Formats: sequence, structure tokens, C-alpha cells
Amino acid sequence: MRAVHGGDTYSKPAVFLDYSVNLNPFGMPDFVKEAARESLVDCARYPDSRYRALAGAAASYYDLEGERLIFGNGAAELIFRIVQARQPRRAVLLAPTFGEYEAALESVGVQPDFFCLKEEAGFELPVDAYLKFLDQIRPEIVFLCNPANPTGTVCESGGLGQILDFCGACGILAVVDECFLDFVEDSEDLSVLPRIRRGEKQIFVLKALTKSFAMAGLRFGLGFSADGELLERMRCSGQPWSVSIPAEAAAMAVFTDPKRSLQYLLKTRELLKEEKKCLGEGLAAAGGEIYGSRANFLFFCDTLGQRPLALYEHFLAQGILIRSCADYHGLNGLYYRVCVRRHEENVRFLKTLADYL
Amino acid sequence: MRAVHGGDTYSKPAVFLDYSVNLNPFGMPDFVKEAARESLVDCARYPDSRYRALAGAAASYYDLEGERLIFGNGAAELIFRIVQARQPRRAVLLAPTFGEYEAALESVGVQPDFFCLKEEAGFELPVDAYLKFLDQIRPEIVFLCNPANPTGTVCESGGLGQILDFCGACGILAVVDECFLDFVEDSEDLSVLPRIRRGEKQIFVLKALTKSFAMAGLRFGLGFSADGELLERMRCSGQPWSVSIPAEAAAMAVFTDPKRSLQYLLKTRELLKEEKKCLGEGLAAAGGEIYGSRANFLFFCDTLGQRPLALYEHFLAQGILIRSCADYHGLNGLYYRVCVRRHEENVRFLKTLADYL
Repeated sequence: MRAVHGGDTYSKPAVFLDYSVNLNPFGMPDFVKEAARESLVDCARYPDSRYRALAGAAASYYDLEGERLIFGNGAAELIFRIVQARQPRRAVLLAPTFGEYEAALESVGVQPDFFCLKEEAGFELPVDAYLKFLDQIRPEIVFLCNPANPTGTVCESGGLGQILDFCGACGILAVVDECFLDFVEDSEDLSVLPRIRRGEKQIFVLKALTKSFAMAGLRFGLGFSADGELLERMRCSGQPWSVSIPAEAAAMAVFTDPKRSLQYLLKTRELLKEEKKCLGEGLAAAGGEIYGSRANFLFFCDTLGQRPLALYEHFLAQGILIRSCADYHGLNGLYYRVCVRRHEENVRFLKTLADYL
Repeated sequence: MRAVHGGDTYSKPAVFLDYSVNLNPFGMPDFVKEAARESLVDCARYPDSRYRALAGAAASYYDLEGERLIFGNGAAELIFRIVQARQPRRAVLLAPTFGEYEAALESVGVQPDFFCLKEEAGFELPVDAYLKFLDQIRPEIVFLCNPANPTGTVCESGGLGQILDFCGACGILAVVDECFLDFVEDSEDLSVLPRIRRGEKQIFVLKALTKSFAMAGLRFGLGFSADGELLERMRCSGQPWSVSIPAEAAAMAVFTDPKRSLQYLLKTRELLKEEKKCLGEGLAAAGGEIYGSRANFLFFCDTLGQRPLALYEHFLAQGILIRSCADYHGLNGLYYRVCVRRHEENVRFLKTLADYL
């Protein structure tokens, strides 16, 4: 069976506010939408199977060499490709974490070992214990989501550095998923891209425009590695035209106007700061125990909830979809994740929350 | 190394006429383009991971149950997924044939056995000899492209039926790629979809809108099977959102207006009939030995050519890209494939051809 995901408003036509997906609350920027629109005249032909112009623009945007880049039909495609290219026998995942890592591992017959994050430690990653676990299991691949999904905790540079050094020394491929990093205040210091720039080969960094620029329906993700052989195996693990022309055009718009793109992200972070405070206070007042939540979503336990899923059902009855975390390893139906949206929407959300009490 | 493909005008900026890709000469229909354009307002959100509306519309268009359908980011994605889901140890391919079958097999470590089509038989598939070959090799999977790419030969119902019966009896999964079938005159009788409707489980049919409706840059393909377990394994072999919202919208436009879509295809076939005759005569006069060519392209040997690739280079120097078939198993640099385009373009093509002599 497939992992469950947020965003399934398709089977719930009465939903008018989706708090279950973590997209930029401002939506897709107009300049990006316009680029996608203009590209439609060009959609009869195939995309460049080597995505040369895109690689040039992305290399300049992220300040590294174009040969260290790979593009995907969303970051999700790259998760499957990396597993298919690496063909690991053992893998370590955190619990809870994003479901597609496990789905990708299962697609090549691997049952991962789970390192369980503890509620009493706020679901933060205890670096020493984690390293001890890796030393025991000796996996070929690990996935780290920074900031984490669904908890929104952040592994700070020091701890993450220790982990990556350990992985490098032991030949473990560390996949660092930075899909939500654009939403984190002062996140530039947290990215591990500098290690790719330095040529460290045991790290694969995953990013996407899906969330930061709200283009989930266009599908665009990218990966970074200094291991050219790994990238070549990934390219050969699927078709050569996986990024569509509209997705390519949208990404080109972001990469070729870095100043405008950064402004958009900074404006987003400002909104998130304000609105996370407002939503967080409301949730805390309603008995929500909030953890992590450093990205564009809040993760909490409904400590007053009489029963699992009660809050989910309450919101759904009012046309608001929130993410129940009941299906995550290590969580249960009292845990929820809600994204941060714009002020008027959050007011509506908080009003509905107040009715719950 | 990746297979070579037509359509690489990206590295050849001087090319103004691309005869190397086999797309509908009329381009993407306006009603399809319009649907993709309108969908852009909706592209911030994720596609329906189960593509329920699309499955309903496609099921009605192809007149079979929605559970027998799977969608892909182009047919090429489905070729990789079927191989990853089936995990064959042995496979039989025809030579020459479309390069992505072999690429997909290689991605799971399989070196296929090739059944070589003979020039002296016009590259037609000799059914008895092929069955004997299958009986020897006993593969778990075979790929048949009907009409074939690059030759454009057609395997008629009788022979194809014999092959599919044999595969069914021996537990061989037969992938029948009908991506070019829409271009063939009276092709309705040639499709093996009726076998899927009847519930035969050893057949997988591949179709795409990429070629018929010229939407190669949007990426949309679909597959048909009566084997629900195979389809489920294919769904689990990759991400759940592989069809983008613009591609989904374009496909919905085709499927929900079958009368208009059929008219478009009939108009296309009419043009192809006329223009194939005109191009074919020109090529024959220039010493081209034409084979098969029942789809929207002409496959020929340059019998007057002094050396391999001479014709390719001649056209390229004039800004026209044709497909050299030098990289196909069983062919060499004297073989070429050219698509059929609109009259004015074909006149230009023939003028350039005349200069070659």
C-alpha cells in the first residue's frame, strides 16, 4: 500500500481550505506562472533530454557546477531514482518521517531500520545515539529531512556535520532533503550544499521548487551530488525527459531572476514568522503541544483530545482539511500537522479551532 | 550511455525544420493547448495522486474499466516502471527498435536477447521464426512496437494474435507499444485493447498522446492491463504524482471530447496519406529504398549514398534535422527516418533533397 499524503482534496469536495499541504502561502509567483504559460506554445516538442540551459541557470543560482546537478519530475521522483541507482541492502530512516523514503526503499525490496525520535525529546534528533545506531546497523543509505517533515525540527550544523562526517568515513550515502529549508529563518547556514561544492561524494542533497514556489502541480525537484557516477546511474534509472517544458520554464524563471526569487522567499518568511506566532498561540490555547515547527507548518499533539482523529473530523466537518499524523511510524491519531496560510485564512482556522473546545 | 533520440534541436540552434521526431504535423490542437493553459491557475496544488477523474474519462474514451489503466509522465516512464515492476531475468527485443526498451532493461541489469529483423524481408516480423526464438529463449517479457519504430512496419492482427496467444500460454508478458497506432489508416482493427477488455493478463498495452496530439513537452502516456497486481506494483515503483496538472488537463480535454479528438486524428491521417505519397516519391527518386512506413514517418536506406551519414550532414547544413539510424542495433549510417510534416515544409524538404543529388 502507498503512503498517505496531505493534499487529497480530490476525494473531499466540501473542503475549501487545505491545511494539510505545506506550500508557500502566497501561491505560485506571477512571474513563474507567466513563464509556464508562455512555454505552452513550445510544448509540442520534446524537452532537451540533457536539460543543458536549465543546468546552466541552476548552477549559477546555487553557485556550483552544472555537472553536479540532476533534475526530477518533483523531488519525489529523485527519491526513487536515488534508491534505484544505489540499490542498498540496508537503510536507516528516522521515525516519523516523510513516507516516500520508505516507499522508494520498498520498491527495491528493502525494509528500512527505523531510528525512533522521542516525544520527550521534542522529536529532536539525538546525534550521539543516532551515530551509535548507524554504527550498529551499517546501512548503505540514510535519509535526513532538514527541516524534518512532519515535525519541523531542525538538525543544527554542528550535529549534522558530525553525522555527515561519520557517513563519509563509513561509505554511507547520506541523502539530505532540504525541500523545506527555504522557509527557515537564516537557513543559509544550515544547507549542506557547501559540502557538495567541496566535492564530498557521500552526500546527496535534495531540493524542490514545489513547496517554496508553490508549484506542486507542475512538478520540479533537483538533486546535488559530487559523485558523477551516481548521477549518471540515476539518469539511466528512468526516462530522459522527466521534467516537462512548463516545469522547466517555471524553474528557469526562478533561477534566472535570483533577486526576485529571493525577495519572494524573504516576504514569505516574514509572513510565516507573524502567522506561525498567531496560529501557534491559538493551538497552544486549545491544548496543542507544539514541537519543532521551524518550517512553514506546525506539528502538535492534541493533549485535550478525547480520542484520536477528533480534531481532524471536527475541521473536516467545517470544510477544512488538516493532516492527521496517525499513519506515521511512531505517531498516533492525536498528532497533527497544519501548514501556515495567510492571515484571513488563519483567522478562519482559529475560529473553527475555538469551536472545538 | 543513454540511447540517442530524435528531436535534439537544442544543441543545433541553426536547425529550423525538425524531421527527426514523429509528432503530429498539425501540432497540439488549440482545444488541448487551451485546457493546459487554463490549468495553470491550479498548479500550486498537487495532482490527485490517484488520478480518479482522469481514469474515469480515459476509461470512457477507450471503453474499458478505469482499474485497468495506469498513467505516466510520458509513455517512456511507463516502460521503466513495467520493467521495474516485472523484474525480468530474460527479455527479447526486436532489432532495430525504440531505444528506451533496452535502456529500461539495463536499468534493472538485464541484457536483452535480440531478434534481428532482416532487410531482405523489408524489416517485417516473421511470426514463425519469432515464435521459435521465444520458445528457445523463454523470456519473461517481450516488447513489440506496432507500428514499429523506426521502421513503421505493422504486425497484422493474425500474426500478432498468434504471438500474444503464445505469450499468454507461456507466461511471457507481452508489452505492445501502440504509441504510433493513431496515425495508421484503419488502425482500429489492429489494436490489441480488446484482449485487455476480455481480461487477458499477459498483455500490457502502451499508448501516448505525445505523438498523436503533439504534446511531447507536456509528457503524457498511459498503459492498459487486466492484471491488477502488475498495475499496483507499477504504481509502487515510483512517485504517486507523476502526471503534472497541465498534462492531466490536456489529456482530459482529449478524453472528454472524443468526437473532436477523432476528427483531429482523421484530419491528420488524411494529410499523412497525401504527404507520405509526395515525400515517398521524392525519396524514391533520390535513391531511397523505403520500408514499412505505415505510421507518420518514412524509413529508408540511402542506396545512392557514397558514405554513412552523408544525407544527414547534407540536411543539417541546410538547417534540417533528420534521424540517422546509425545507432540502432542492426542498422547503419545509410538508414534514416524522417517524419511527415505539412505540405510547405515537405516541399522545402524535397528541394533540399534534390540538391543532394
